[in-house]
Amino acid sequence: MSLDGYVAGPDQSLEDPLGKGGEAIHEWMFATRSWREQHGLEGGEANVDDRHAAAWNENIGATIMGRNMFGPIRGPWQDDEWRGWWGEDPPYHTPVFVLTHHERVPLEMEGGTTFHFVTDGIESALEQAVAAADGMDVLIGGGASTAQQYLRSGLVDELTVHVAPVLLGRGERLFEDLGGGPAGLEPVELVASPAVAHFRYARTG
Amino acid sequence: MSLDGYVAGPDQSLEDPLGKGGEAIHEWMFATRSWREQHGLEGGEANVDDRHAAAWNENIGATIMGRNMFGPIRGPWQDDEWRGWWGEDPPYHTPVFVLTHHERVPLEMEGGTTFHFVTDGIESALEQAVAAADGMDVLIGGGASTAQQYLRSGLVDELTVHVAPVLLGRGERLFEDLGGGPAGLEPVELVASPAVAHFRYARTG
Repeated sequence: MSLDGYVAGPDQSLEDPLGKGGEAIHEWMFATRSWREQHGLEGGEANVDDRHAAAWNENIGATIMGRNMFGPIRGPWQDDEWRGWWGEDPPYHTPVFVLTHHERVPLEMEGGTTFHFVTDGIESALEQAVAAADGMDVLIGGGASTAQQYLRSGLVDELTVHVAPVLLGRGERLFEDLGGGPAGLEPVELVASPAVAHFRYARTG
Repeated sequence: MSLDGYVAGPDQSLEDPLGKGGEAIHEWMFATRSWREQHGLEGGEANVDDRHAAAWNENIGATIMGRNMFGPIRGPWQDDEWRGWWGEDPPYHTPVFVLTHHERVPLEMEGGTTFHFVTDGIESALEQAVAAADGMDVLIGGGASTAQQYLRSGLVDELTVHVAPVLLGRGERLFEDLGGGPAGLEPVELVASPAVAHFRYARTG
């Protein structure tokens, strides 16, 4: 998230998967050893940011995302050509449940990632993800609207927000339309590097 | 600021100067040695938060605030009875310029604080504050609306935002109505304790 509250810039498109200016929010991550390793690159920092970047994949058995995080297409799928932003070997390596209003057959990629398209709501997606994760954790990857829907539902056990010192000015807000905010989540960790502050919350009781 | 973007809770009143729940945003400050010393209390942490709490008063020659930060009264001043939230010796010890639409004679308090009521806009308040500060810095104390007006104007040389791991759910947002965001401010510092992350920006060029 940018300090001014945005998890993506405005005007997402094929050229701007994270919206205009949105990449700046993620720069801290591109500098970590974990992220670089995962993308076949050498070097990178092994600092507190690296620990948090690594956690993105630790003990994750299934992933949930909104369809805007999966692609720039709106409305019905025109054809089956769009296969995600990430090429043939996406960095998930788990079943990924994509929330959408439009049916589509599952899409099996390389490296263990299969995209399943869920049209019957967030509870159903979570049930399917929990079953697929087989005892491991389910990651709700985003974007903003998907995170909000799950935060409102009270189904989130843990929330980590990485705040970059970026002032984006406009875009997709994370903390909006939460009807009073995510209840029951207590702060359990706050650490920072010069590039990003990591806020972690967990459900208590 | 709370992680979800609020610098005060909703429904400010005589009983809730910082709005409902707003005090939680400031708790990190009450724990610092500087704040406690300034309020006649012993003890407190001498950590990174203390350094930032101390900076609130360092080299400050004048202060600007909005009228909601000065008091809960809306509309014309009913009488001269309201003398601020802080008792007879407010923690400013400088001239304080209060932005308001309603004239009122200056109010001299103990300890060097005098409240001046400025009715002709933020540029005028800044000019008066700069003159009064006599080479020292001018602090724009808040609240949200005052900060936004100055951020929009491009007159801010330095911005520090202290983000507490609080999820307030609603209240007064800092980063709103900025018309694309504060331009020209670059991140120069990010440090954190477990209680708060400090984001500092400065104008470059």
